[in-house]
Amino acid sequence: MNTNIFRSMSYGVYIVTTLDGRRPTGCVANSVMQITSSPATVAVSMNHDNYTHQCISKTGYFAVSILSEQSAPQLIGTFGFQSGKDTDKFAGVEYQTVEGMPVISDSCGYLVCRVIDTMDTSTHTVFLGEVVEADVFSTAPAMTYAYYHQVIKGKSPKNAPTYIEEKPEPVAAKYVCEICGYEHVAESLPEDFRCPICGVDASLFKKAE
Amino acid sequence: MNTNIFRSMSYGVYIVTTLDGRRPTGCVANSVMQITSSPATVAVSMNHDNYTHQCISKTGYFAVSILSEQSAPQLIGTFGFQSGKDTDKFAGVEYQTVEGMPVISDSCGYLVCRVIDTMDTSTHTVFLGEVVEADVFSTAPAMTYAYYHQVIKGKSPKNAPTYIEEKPEPVAAKYVCEICGYEHVAESLPEDFRCPICGVDASLFKKAE
Repeated sequence: MNTNIFRSMSYGVYIVTTLDGRRPTGCVANSVMQITSSPATVAVSMNHDNYTHQCISKTGYFAVSILSEQSAPQLIGTFGFQSGKDTDKFAGVEYQTVEGMPVISDSCGYLVCRVIDTMDTSTHTVFLGEVVEADVFSTAPAMTYAYYHQVIKGKSPKNAPTYIEEKPEPVAAKYVCEICGYEHVAESLPEDFRCPICGVDASLFKKAE
Repeated sequence: MNTNIFRSMSYGVYIVTTLDGRRPTGCVANSVMQITSSPATVAVSMNHDNYTHQCISKTGYFAVSILSEQSAPQLIGTFGFQSGKDTDKFAGVEYQTVEGMPVISDSCGYLVCRVIDTMDTSTHTVFLGEVVEADVFSTAPAMTYAYYHQVIKGKSPKNAPTYIEEKPEPVAAKYVCEICGYEHVAESLPEDFRCPICGVDASLFKKAE
């Protein structure tokens, strides 16, 4: 089996949000798709280990904010590479509350969904949500996973359905962020360098062999 | 609710195939995504009215061929805008048989899946498939739905999850294919014109008012 073919599947980049009690939380997801058009429903695949998973299970509601090519890449660092269990991911992030759910302002727009069914697997749950509210914030092109990977040079976190282990290629000077996997190729890494994805400083970059 | 936001969700263009008894059949789908990475599983949303739906339900197997930007657009006409009930969609289409399933040669590659779970909605079934075989045919960029819509100027058929009814804009000379919705803008439509998507001749084009 040649699993490289999975790299040819196309996805958007989404932030799936919900509430932890009264506190907003969420995470980055690629595996989001529309299932029916009338009534409109969408499915989201979420790893059991994601804190957002248990919060959606409790509230029965989630929102999907659709990132655009103009959305700040730091949103992916904030929501994709730390856990909402110990972090207030929404600190410093502009958002609105729609039907009780937090939605990210710096996005194409959002869908707010009520969970109407679930399908469980060994590692992930597919939440089927009926869309109860939706709106457009921006007509900028949606960010695709290909754009994130090729233009922003980002990676999937290890518990994403789309994660593929990559063997690092020997490159003279490649500095890899230990938090989010962002690769910076340069002759040297300035001391005041900060990861454009997750915002950590140069001390958390490791030179690839 | 502003359903225009659905246009910002990103998809690939896939041909989902299976067997009707011993005869290969299939249809175009956008709503395909990976659910888990280990074991690898993918979910496909399929309208109950699609002939492919009942054939997958019977065989318990399906394949997903991932179209590339270089795949012939006619494949979308052949598989997306006619029913496999009365048509041999594979006539004239180059394909291979892998684990009993037909896969399209003119593609990025394929995944062959065994159905391990289903989730039903009023109009669509989500088939969850464990990937039993997969390979790469081409490293050409995958065709996204945005590419199909913007570059090839194609539409979704009416029973797709991603179908959105569009009000035709008044354009001086726009000829619309009555079979697949392809729009040809020109001063006139030559008699020997054939639809680049579904292959029908000029008689099946209607001038938009």
